[in-house]
Amino acid sequence: MASTSGGPEIEQLIQLLSRLPGLGPRSGRRAVLHLIKKKEQLMIPLAAALDRAVDAVKVCQTCGNIDTISPCTICADPRRAETGLLIVVEDVADLWALERAGIGMVRYHVLGGVLSPLDGVGPDDLSIDQLIRRAPDYSEVVLGINATVEGQTTAHYITDRLADTGVAITRLAHGVPVGGELDYLDEGTLSQALKARTRF
Amino acid sequence: MASTSGGPEIEQLIQLLSRLPGLGPRSGRRAVLHLIKKKEQLMIPLAAALDRAVDAVKVCQTCGNIDTISPCTICADPRRAETGLLIVVEDVADLWALERAGIGMVRYHVLGGVLSPLDGVGPDDLSIDQLIRRAPDYSEVVLGINATVEGQTTAHYITDRLADTGVAITRLAHGVPVGGELDYLDEGTLSQALKARTRF
Ligand SMILES: [Zn+2]
Ligand SMILES: [Zn+2]
Repeated sequence: MASTSGGPEIEQLIQLLSRLPGLGPRSGRRAVLHLIKKKEQLMIPLAAALDRAVDAVKVCQTCGNIDTISPCTICADPRRAETGLLIVVEDVADLWALERAGIGMVRYHVLGGVLSPLDGVGPDDLSIDQLIRRAPDYSEVVLGINATVEGQTTAHYITDRLADTGVAITRLAHGVPVGGELDYLDEGTLSQALKARTRF
Repeated sequence: MASTSGGPEIEQLIQLLSRLPGLGPRSGRRAVLHLIKKKEQLMIPLAAALDRAVDAVKVCQTCGNIDTISPCTICADPRRAETGLLIVVEDVADLWALERAGIGMVRYHVLGGVLSPLDGVGPDDLSIDQLIRRAPDYSEVVLGINATVEGQTTAHYITDRLADTGVAITRLAHGVPVGGELDYLDEGTLSQALKARTRF
């Protein structure tokens, strides 16, 4: 069959864009057509932004955040140490979500995933040793790990490893999201929300 | 509030990727994190592929297809003229879909949209004049325009404009998609499929 999409350059661009999360072959093709239609406003700026990001992006050697400097902006900011809180998250998307929420002057530790024996993910595949080394510099480690089975296993493993350090270990509260409708929530969330109910 | 996503380079990349069809701010952030995680396998190749495509991509001056040469591979292939069929489509995605289907040795004409007075799209905004000039070189013009109200208005307008050329004008058949389930289809499709029924 003849090439269906105008030459190897376009075909390769479709294949690469199709590998982004949330896209597939069909949306990859639509994305490429959109880029070509908006060549000046979108395609050229995106090509330039990608080139810049390839050169500039660094993983913070302290916390695992993504930034253009390492240590990252958060680790380099002394005010971030004032609360003494170190929040442990699975990945950078979670860190960004907490930052967008404006939760305040805290530091983070990005694990890079959760323990998953079935997928061959053990403690050495996550930044747990680095966490154990950092924890004594903070007064409280807050586990912001997702409430999945693997997330809870990981939380227990970290709690055990941190037991000797004497640092306080807490986790983010479960409950009803602000503005969330009850009938969209799972039973586990609802029963946790009832147990942790507060005075009106 | 502090920058939530590691510097202006990353922020700009998120904003640009969020403008692709099918993506939004949330999936744009996920896409950027995925790119950074797969820097060698995906981010660097994608940056290079975009740079190459920016330089290479051309809109075919004859048919409106996208390729790296103009006239495009299809317009430059003399075998494509043998059937005498010129298929009129709204956009390049439709052309690519027909090519993927392997419909054979045909040529195309990409209109660049449909007539839409409410959106200010008139005949001069589409490549209709070019179609009228090309049509006499073909034995049959097949309208592959979508069966929307605006698509049908456009099809009627083109039919009127082509009346004097003497070229045969047909349209793609409506009916039940191969493997399609009847109860997912709209009434218009079903009644057309009944009218155009064929002997078993
Ligand atoms: Zn950091
Ligand atoms: Zn062409």
